Parts: sequence; C-alpha cells; structure tokens
Amino acid sequence: MPDSVQIREVGARDGLQSEAPIGIEQRVELIESLLAAGVTRIEMVSFVSPKAVPSMAGAAEVVAAIGARAGVVRAALVPNLRGAQMAIDAGVDEITVIMSASAVYNERNVHMTLDESIAQIASICATEGVPPVDAVVSCSFGSPYEGDVDPAFVSSLCARLREAGAGAVTLADTTGMATPRRIAEALAQTGSDVGLHLHETRGTGVLNAYAGLQCGVTRFDCSVGGLGGSPFAAGAAGNVATEELVALLDDLGVSTGIDVEALIGSALLIEQLVGHPVPSRVAHVGTRSRRPVTG
Amino acid sequence: MPDSVQIREVGARDGLQSEAPIGIEQRVELIESLLAAGVTRIEMVSFVSPKAVPSMAGAAEVVAAIGARAGVVRAALVPNLRGAQMAIDAGVDEITVIMSASAVYNERNVHMTLDESIAQIASICATEGVPPVDAVVSCSFGSPYEGDVDPAFVSSLCARLREAGAGAVTLADTTGMATPRRIAEALAQTGSDVGLHLHETRGTGVLNAYAGLQCGVTRFDCSVGGLGGSPFAAGAAGNVATEELVALLDDLGVSTGIDVEALIGSALLIEQLVGHPVPSRVAHVGTRSRRPVTG
Repeated sequence: MPDSVQIREVGARDGLQSEAPIGIEQRVELIESLLAAGVTRIEMVSFVSPKAVPSMAGAAEVVAAIGARAGVVRAALVPNLRGAQMAIDAGVDEITVIMSASAVYNERNVHMTLDESIAQIASICATEGVPPVDAVVSCSFGSPYEGDVDPAFVSSLCARLREAGAGAVTLADTTGMATPRRIAEALAQTGSDVGLHLHETRGTGVLNAYAGLQCGVTRFDCSVGGLGGSPFAAGAAGNVATEELVALLDDLGVSTGIDVEALIGSALLIEQLVGHPVPSRVAHVGTRSRRPVTG
Repeated sequence: MPDSVQIREVGARDGLQSEAPIGIEQRVELIESLLAAGVTRIEMVSFVSPKAVPSMAGAAEVVAAIGARAGVVRAALVPNLRGAQMAIDAGVDEITVIMSASAVYNERNVHMTLDESIAQIASICATEGVPPVDAVVSCSFGSPYEGDVDPAFVSSLCARLREAGAGAVTLADTTGMATPRRIAEALAQTGSDVGLHLHETRGTGVLNAYAGLQCGVTRFDCSVGGLGGSPFAAGAAGNVATEELVALLDDLGVSTGIDVEALIGSALLIEQLVGHPVPSRVAHVGTRSRRPVTG
C-alpha cells in the first residue's frame, strides 16, 4: 500500500459534461471549493465544440478565472489538435488526451483508427508550448463492443503513447468492466506507473481502485459527488466519487492532502449546481466517523 | 482467495423487512426464484411480532410453503425465545439470532444488556429440537453511537456466543462502518471462520467482502437486488447485492453454485414486488459480459 496517492479531480469536466450547462461563475465556484478542500490536480474543462458538449462552453474563461497557482495543476481535456492549441493558448498546466483500447469504440466515438489517434496525439505532444500530456486509454479493462481487451495490447498502446510524447498514461474503465482480477492483469503488463480512471457502472469503482492500490498505483481520477460518464458511451455511469475514495484512503492511512469533510461540502455544492442528487453515498451519509442524529 | 464461498441469501428477510408488506404467495415466488438460481442457504423469514414488523407476518406459512428440501438450508431470524420456539415448530433448518457489539445499540434496539442477550441466545441454543444457530454480531466494525469497536472485544463476544451454543458466528456491519482495514483487524482476532454480513451504506459493501475474501472468509450474507437494512438502525442502508458479489466471485473464479443471470432475474422480480427500483447496479446494467444495445 503506498504512503500517499495523487487524486486528479475531474468533476468539473467529466462530472459536468453530461449535465445541463451551468454558468461559468458556478463552475469557477465549484473549482475554488475543490481547491480549498486540498485538491492540487484538477481537470477543469475540455476544449471541445460547444455544439457537441454545450456544458463545456467557455473553457478558456474558466481557466483564466482560476489563473496559474503554485502547487496546482490545471488540466484540460482536448479531443484534437485544435482543442490542444486552444488549451495551450489558455495556459493550462496539463493536457489530457483520450484514445481507446477498443478499435470499435474509437471508430464510433472519434471516427479514427487507433493508428490515427496515436498520430494525432503525437502531433499534440509536438506542438510548441505544450504542457505535459496525459494520455488516457479508454476501455482498458473491457469494451462494450469487443468484450475482453488483451492486457498485452493495452500495454503496447501505453508504450506507443509514451513514444508519441505522452508524459503519463492513464487506464480508463469507461463502462465499468474492470474487476480486481482485470486490474491486476493489466498492471502486470503496464507496470504500476499509470493512472486509473474508474467508473461505478457496476458498483465496483472503489473496489477496483483498492485493487489498483494493492498493485502500487498512486494516481487516481475521481469526480466529486460521483458524477460523470461519457455522453457518448453506451452503458457508462458516474466516476468513482472523490470523497468515497478519500474516505477509504484516510482509513487506510494513505495521504491525499484532501480534507474529506471539505470535499463533502464540494459534493453538496455540485449537487446543488446540477439540481439532482449525486450518486455518492458518503456525500449524503458522511464518513464512518459521523454520528447519526437520533431521538 | 478461497475456491468457493457460501452465500446466505437474506433478501426475503432483510430485504423485505423494511418494505410495505407483500403477499405470502409473492414471497414464496421470490424464494422459489432464488432457489432456482442456485441459492442453497436462505434466510426466508423472521419470527417477529407482526405488529413490530408487518412485512414479516406469516413466517410459518412461508416456511411450510417451501418445505424441507435436500441441500437447502431454510433459515429464520428470531428475536427471542418465543420466536425461536415458533421457528422450531415451523421446522426451519437454521436459526439466526442477533446481538450487538455495541452496548448502546443493543440497549436501544432490544432493551437488553450484552450479558442478557448472550443469556437469551444460550436459552435458544438449549431449546429442545433447535436446529444449528448462527449468532450475528451487529456493529462489529463500528457503532453509530460509540464509534470504533475493539476487534478484541468482538472476538471475545464470538467466543462467548460459541460457548453459549452457537454453531456459527457472523460479523455484521450494520451501518456501513467497515473498511478493508477494519475487516482485516477484526478477522485477525476472530479468525476467518466467521460469516460477513455487510451493508452498502457508504458504498463499500462489495469492497469489504473482497477484503474478507482476501482474509479467507467463505461465508457471506447478501440480499438480492441490494435491498435491506434494519428498520431500527439510524443510518442503515441496503445489503451487499447478491448479484454484485456473485458477479465479482465469478470473475475471480470463486464458485458459489449460483447462476448470476438467473439471480438478476430474481432481483428484477423483487424490484417488481416492492414497487420501486432496487439499488443494485448489476441488476440493471448486467454483468460485464452483457453488450449494450447500440444504434
């Protein structure tokens, strides 16, 4: 079990992207709340077409409103070279790119072959002024189209992405097909120097994060309140709720630098902003140290 | 990791006890559906006052309707000696009794000291014609009143319960305060020859079951659809969903004798019977081998 892990908070991006658009001020308020809770690496926006993903409109304004801060990595997701240039112009500290370990998924979602995706990522990594790039490999633990995905193939993609210039690689369980066994099998091939981006589609997100921890992984994507899921992925569902993973890590003595009680406040804020209950249980019930109000 | 584990299905009891009463015929239909899916140990009813728990009325009729079957253990929960006598008269194959590792919880819920509870369990175990007794220790991993519970104290209670005549002991996480660390700490004291009865209050039920498996536990209480939770426990929530644990065990190669697809059918049946969605994700999304319907 590692002594500490790094949480990349993706609620302002993955969490909000499928929701009805909310104002830029509210998104900035959410991000400020997360930073105040101790989050230091945060995917705040994506530079996508506002026609395709209306809730991500105004990405540059959000980045500008937060501004560069010591000790804070402001990450942005970009779907292509044009988005990457916008992110660079906005001054983000990290760029996230995505391709899929499933050729069918990649074709249906970005209309590219895997080779074309890798070539595009290489172009992004070669762009002047580009910050560190984290390449996320979706469907790393199974594809809703092809079923099981060969861990050796995932590992070969990771190697090609690093060769293309990605400074970090993250394995994503886009539709909740990971299991502790699949996590261990994949990490046996890729090594534990990868991030994990897990979803609760089948209620196994925190379990899979725990399995990853046991294999030595120290980077996790989570979404405050447990919101999230690709608007384009059949069978997707919310991300691991940041406060649920942090509560587990606190109990295990693994430090994150995040104050779980403050984070629960952020979860209740995002719940209010999106106007419906978030899936996180810990957001509503509290951590195990909370005593119920009784008669 | 064990080769096989035994699931005690508690949906017809723990799952239904807090719901509006449904007919005896429907409860029998649910139990038959579970047995057809391969369940062999099933807590079907509780012999409690129908005034206190209206949904458990007609326990003897349910037991009679199922009848003795080779290879099937028909269990019943009993709160006291009177309930135990009714269960014995009904011919059940196993009796479940409960006491708490939390003195305050025990006092508030059954108005007895821990010593009084143990004495009552001893009387039940000494009753003529009594089948094997499984003593469930609630709040084994934390109390909503006193907070942390000492694993050594839980272990001493287990020893006293066995001395009182209980053939088996089950540690229950009544309000979702268990964590993998607490599970390991408790099992280090009690040994792994205990059952685990876990709740999803904080979304950690399946995770904690996994932690128990890693410690060698082979007996788990689960509730089809993930229904359940004490009507008297502040902050309770549903049990581990049987189909979610079986899906995990199938992927790990740990056999249960239960057909997960048939079990999902039972989860959708209980959902229809109670008239609201069950919390289980796997019941709705299917196992990881299910392909989404896409355009």
